[in-house]
Amino acid sequence: MKVGIMGAGNFGTAISQIISQNVEEVILYSRREEVAKTIREHNYNLDYFPNTKLNKNIHATSQLDDLKDCNIILISVPSSVFRQTLEEMKNKNINDFILITASKGIESSLKTMGEIIQEYYDENYVVLSGPNFASEIILNLPTATSIASRNEENLKIVKEVLETKEFKVEIIEDIDGIEYCGIIKNINAIAYGICEGMNINENARFAILNKGFNESKEFISKIGGKKSTLDNLCGFGDFVLTSISQESRNHTLGMLYGQKLIIDEKSSGVVFEGKNSIMAIKKIHDNYSMNSAIVDFVYDVVVNQKSPKLAFNDLWSEICK
Amino acid sequence: MKVGIMGAGNFGTAISQIISQNVEEVILYSRREEVAKTIREHNYNLDYFPNTKLNKNIHATSQLDDLKDCNIILISVPSSVFRQTLEEMKNKNINDFILITASKGIESSLKTMGEIIQEYYDENYVVLSGPNFASEIILNLPTATSIASRNEENLKIVKEVLETKEFKVEIIEDIDGIEYCGIIKNINAIAYGICEGMNINENARFAILNKGFNESKEFISKIGGKKSTLDNLCGFGDFVLTSISQESRNHTLGMLYGQKLIIDEKSSGVVFEGKNSIMAIKKIHDNYSMNSAIVDFVYDVVVNQKSPKLAFNDLWSEICK
Repeated sequence: MKVGIMGAGNFGTAISQIISQNVEEVILYSRREEVAKTIREHNYNLDYFPNTKLNKNIHATSQLDDLKDCNIILISVPSSVFRQTLEEMKNKNINDFILITASKGIESSLKTMGEIIQEYYDENYVVLSGPNFASEIILNLPTATSIASRNEENLKIVKEVLETKEFKVEIIEDIDGIEYCGIIKNINAIAYGICEGMNINENARFAILNKGFNESKEFISKIGGKKSTLDNLCGFGDFVLTSISQESRNHTLGMLYGQKLIIDEKSSGVVFEGKNSIMAIKKIHDNYSMNSAIVDFVYDVVVNQKSPKLAFNDLWSEICK
Repeated sequence: MKVGIMGAGNFGTAISQIISQNVEEVILYSRREEVAKTIREHNYNLDYFPNTKLNKNIHATSQLDDLKDCNIILISVPSSVFRQTLEEMKNKNINDFILITASKGIESSLKTMGEIIQEYYDENYVVLSGPNFASEIILNLPTATSIASRNEENLKIVKEVLETKEFKVEIIEDIDGIEYCGIIKNINAIAYGICEGMNINENARFAILNKGFNESKEFISKIGGKKSTLDNLCGFGDFVLTSISQESRNHTLGMLYGQKLIIDEKSSGVVFEGKNSIMAIKKIHDNYSMNSAIVDFVYDVVVNQKSPKLAFNDLWSEICK
């Protein structure tokens, strides 16, 4: 069994370390040859984990051809280059493998990563999502995640390849829901962050998080998923962790908006998935004629640059209505 | 409209400040005449809120008779003296009022506060529960809560008496569920605290919180409540806030167990609702032949004094099983 990982970033590198415990060989692909070279020569991904030695059966490459005979390929690239990545793989005739996506996000076309996959491959892909900070996975610290797919056989194989004593995997049945959970949580993390940035009290923050949780259930149900998916690790666990943890980028983005410190994303070179998501999610709500106080709150602050305090007043007037 | 508050503790005092904005007179009862006297003379409850002046229409008393002509009485006393409190009220012929309970907990007889109320009064009581730190309510900071009752008329009256622009109230339909939400969250807060005390990583803590959330849904459903009640403010909001906030006592109790620092409750003079609850909740699980990994984890550490690390190993082996 040979597993390829597309993307030697935070998550791709960390999950390589897990999978390498279960299979003979992991091929870790990085677009940048200097990253691949350092891993090949020293077994370290210095950009992300300068203090953790990677297992010896993790082989790094910057050549797409090296992924050709992989039985499984896990894609973990920023959503902004997801389509391009699939296109390159397809052009190289990389076929006949089980595709796992750990990338989350939504295109401006309103397509999810899964919907993009179906343009290039088929509908048997596996989605992986959960409360999973890479910084903890790389250290082999206990972590649990959800996977979903339309193909049951693929789910079984993927679970076996991923699961260790420390890294646990639950199979859930909702392929549409799991993807949107990974998108909508970022909106809620920004909302929670905005409130924390304004120093809004805890009673209010958790009433708002609660409202976001229930609005997310309605949303997931509307797009064809199951409300109960929000109770799984890709739901509740990831939703709460991403919202409240200081390690979450979208939480931080929200904090900055709440403190009226607008960051220059281009100069920072940092991608906040949530900011692109809010435009798309707002559009989907409009298309379905759905109202969400949380989506409006984040949209008002982030896109309309409304004063966070005024936006909060509007939001609070929707609580328990 | 005259409202009585039984118990001039943290929550009782704070909620007096809210209700006094909506009604002519609030009678705040304290067992200790010196507390009542200070409030009467200076409008401060120095034990709890030395810096917040109470509204002038809050009248403190240590005489139960003063509650006789109240239209509504909200009880906010420790669960350990709840029965005794009702007995004293009944002996004083305090009758014909709408009873609200903000007290949470379970007797060693396995009776909830609501079930005790039915021994002395009737089944038309109202339960109030939500992510509600008193320290924030007293300052009139935005707060939202759930109420439930078998009597719809009472719910409407209570909502009107409680609700302000800042203090929001949602009516939910599950009188059994709301009570058990307020009990089971303390078990989960202890569990989360134990993990934090051991410095367990966030991925694992949120996988465990997620498992506790789902096990709580099963439990609430088993005792005759609705799973969806766990999605309300008395559920999700209070469950997450109590589990993760540094201000939550049961979280702190768990932290101490996780750090192997057992506190002397008697000398501390502090009541941890959760410690009594774990015995009762474990018994109810046994009676229903229900298994809960979270209940077992807390029971093992708190009652059986098992090493937290060993208990965590057992718990982790149940994740995604």
